[in-house]
Amino acid sequence: MSPAYDVVIAGGGVAGLAVAWRAARRGLSVAVADPTPGGGATHASAGMLAPVSEVTYTEEPLLRLGLASLAAWPAFRAALEDESGIELDYRTDGTLEVARSADDMAFLDDLAAFERTLGLRVERLTGRECRSFEPMLAPSVRGGLLARDDAWVNPRRVVRALLTAFEKAGGVLVSEHVAEIGASGTGGPSVRLTNGDTVPAGQVVVAAGSWSASLLPGLPVRPVKGEILRLRGPQGFLTRCVRGLVHGSPAYLVPRGDGEITLGATVQELGHDERVTAGGVYELLRDARELVPGITELELAETTVGFRPGTPDNLPIIGPAGPPGVFAATGHGRNGVLLCPITADAVAAFLTGDEPPQVIGSCHPGRFSQ
Amino acid sequence: MSPAYDVVIAGGGVAGLAVAWRAARRGLSVAVADPTPGGGATHASAGMLAPVSEVTYTEEPLLRLGLASLAAWPAFRAALEDESGIELDYRTDGTLEVARSADDMAFLDDLAAFERTLGLRVERLTGRECRSFEPMLAPSVRGGLLARDDAWVNPRRVVRALLTAFEKAGGVLVSEHVAEIGASGTGGPSVRLTNGDTVPAGQVVVAAGSWSASLLPGLPVRPVKGEILRLRGPQGFLTRCVRGLVHGSPAYLVPRGDGEITLGATVQELGHDERVTAGGVYELLRDARELVPGITELELAETTVGFRPGTPDNLPIIGPAGPPGVFAATGHGRNGVLLCPITADAVAAFLTGDEPPQVIGSCHPGRFSQ
Repeated sequence: MSPAYDVVIAGGGVAGLAVAWRAARRGLSVAVADPTPGGGATHASAGMLAPVSEVTYTEEPLLRLGLASLAAWPAFRAALEDESGIELDYRTDGTLEVARSADDMAFLDDLAAFERTLGLRVERLTGRECRSFEPMLAPSVRGGLLARDDAWVNPRRVVRALLTAFEKAGGVLVSEHVAEIGASGTGGPSVRLTNGDTVPAGQVVVAAGSWSASLLPGLPVRPVKGEILRLRGPQGFLTRCVRGLVHGSPAYLVPRGDGEITLGATVQELGHDERVTAGGVYELLRDARELVPGITELELAETTVGFRPGTPDNLPIIGPAGPPGVFAATGHGRNGVLLCPITADAVAAFLTGDEPPQVIGSCHPGRFSQ
Repeated sequence: MSPAYDVVIAGGGVAGLAVAWRAARRGLSVAVADPTPGGGATHASAGMLAPVSEVTYTEEPLLRLGLASLAAWPAFRAALEDESGIELDYRTDGTLEVARSADDMAFLDDLAAFERTLGLRVERLTGRECRSFEPMLAPSVRGGLLARDDAWVNPRRVVRALLTAFEKAGGVLVSEHVAEIGASGTGGPSVRLTNGDTVPAGQVVVAAGSWSASLLPGLPVRPVKGEILRLRGPQGFLTRCVRGLVHGSPAYLVPRGDGEITLGATVQELGHDERVTAGGVYELLRDARELVPGITELELAETTVGFRPGTPDNLPIIGPAGPPGVFAATGHGRNGVLLCPITADAVAAFLTGDEPPQVIGSCHPGRFSQ
């Protein structure tokens, strides 16, 4: 049996579709298998392109990876908007990270010093200056950091654009899940779909997010449940991303051009528990309210659960995955949208036998067995 | 033109359908006009059959009306379940009204004394006794009242049962709104539907809830917005209705047989504002959490907005509404489900020229013009 496609990609989230688009543009025949592309973690994601945060700044390899991918985003965005004709709501109005106590502010000062060593522009603001930038901020905000270069994007538009650009480049979407990866008669990989069909493939990419271990047993990817809300308000209610620590958890509000605000996110180790819980919604609203009290007047338009694909070292798993011709592009945790350009470039290089970017070396699937 | 129906009822909420069923059983030909029967305030309602509460006990005429309707519920329920074949999830496990402070407890003691003068069975419980009845109650509950005879019902099942029984009794559901009530050539009323059709009717009943004033201009019925949540938990998480004052607002949790818990409700004078707000959901969860902390683990299954039909004196508007042959059955505020049997009996009596129950006299539409 000769391969039906040069590449079959299991999973049509932001990682799988970005790989698919880039691979198709390199002339490969590519199929993405997913009944609901963009319906997984990407659907819940806020789309912040923020490699430096309270969570990641002690994790050097992840930081380097994030910075490399951030640098790739402008060109990635330009090409994607151009080829798809879809505007991504890519915004560069900056992030305001706020402090509500002297302790918070001391923490942010450390963060700012670190960001400056990376060459990032960060300004320290007083509480009054914070409110002059974002008048809806709570009076309790004592100060903050303005990162003027921070960007974010609407992940649902990214997925739509990737799918459009991928199909324009000749790619094929198959509305089934991949159930299993096996070997074809020729020694190459072969995938069995949930409808029972078998598709021989030149190469296979597993980009099934938190479900990836079901296709590559032993792969240390686990679901990290997150609940996230979408509020609907007047345009300009917020113009920047607003972030802050509340009750010890990071909270963020990410405004879109149409007035929608994404408010996130809980972090729970509960397996694939699909329930939106009363407690999760309560905590998100409580914390956001402490940063921006006026959100109480906005419509609660959506409650969503997603599953970040988590790994033991918080780095993604990108590269040859063991069986010949099978690659992994998963384990992106909370950073799937940020890491989408570098993931796409790296995996496309693997698929065509080229050298992947050096920074991707830290993501090799083999690192857990060493 | 001879009437197409003896009676046309504008609105298929719990009031309109109960009137319709009772009128059809008296041998009248009846049509209910509503594209989404049960989709209005009834859909949001919790279904408590509680004529005595912190809200109503100073309002004597409403209290008398509620007690009369409560007394009619068992027979109404038996007939409705029998004729429809639908079980209403009618529960009589009692209400636990809890106090979290000495002030709350003093208030409840006054309420209990008053309830006893009405012949209602009310027991005063310590905090420990409250928790022995409902182990999920917060440790901060200091005491409470157990009303063992209190009942509640699933309003969505009531609507389904009423519609079924109504249609079995020969009634007709017309999937249009009534747009206007006019006069037919013979001097009787005539309704124009939203699809443009005109339907001559022997008599017309306006049971359009908070939208009733659009059909009877000048009728002092206004929408009182309420947001209400539905949680999904294990069966037996709560077995009784739990009520309490939190931050000065009454909060309640109403358990169903299947583990669903209805959690209500906000009260807002915002017209027909259909938005579920972040602040409303936040406050409901916050208050319920103070009574029953464990609700945070439950699924937030539904957020709903409804519009209680409010009147200036909180009494419903039931009776001849001005134009010949036109009756009102609206303005039930938060008490539509409780008042459903007495409303049905009263309006059916009006329609057949019989004497309505005396207690309904306080609800006469003419009282506002006097």
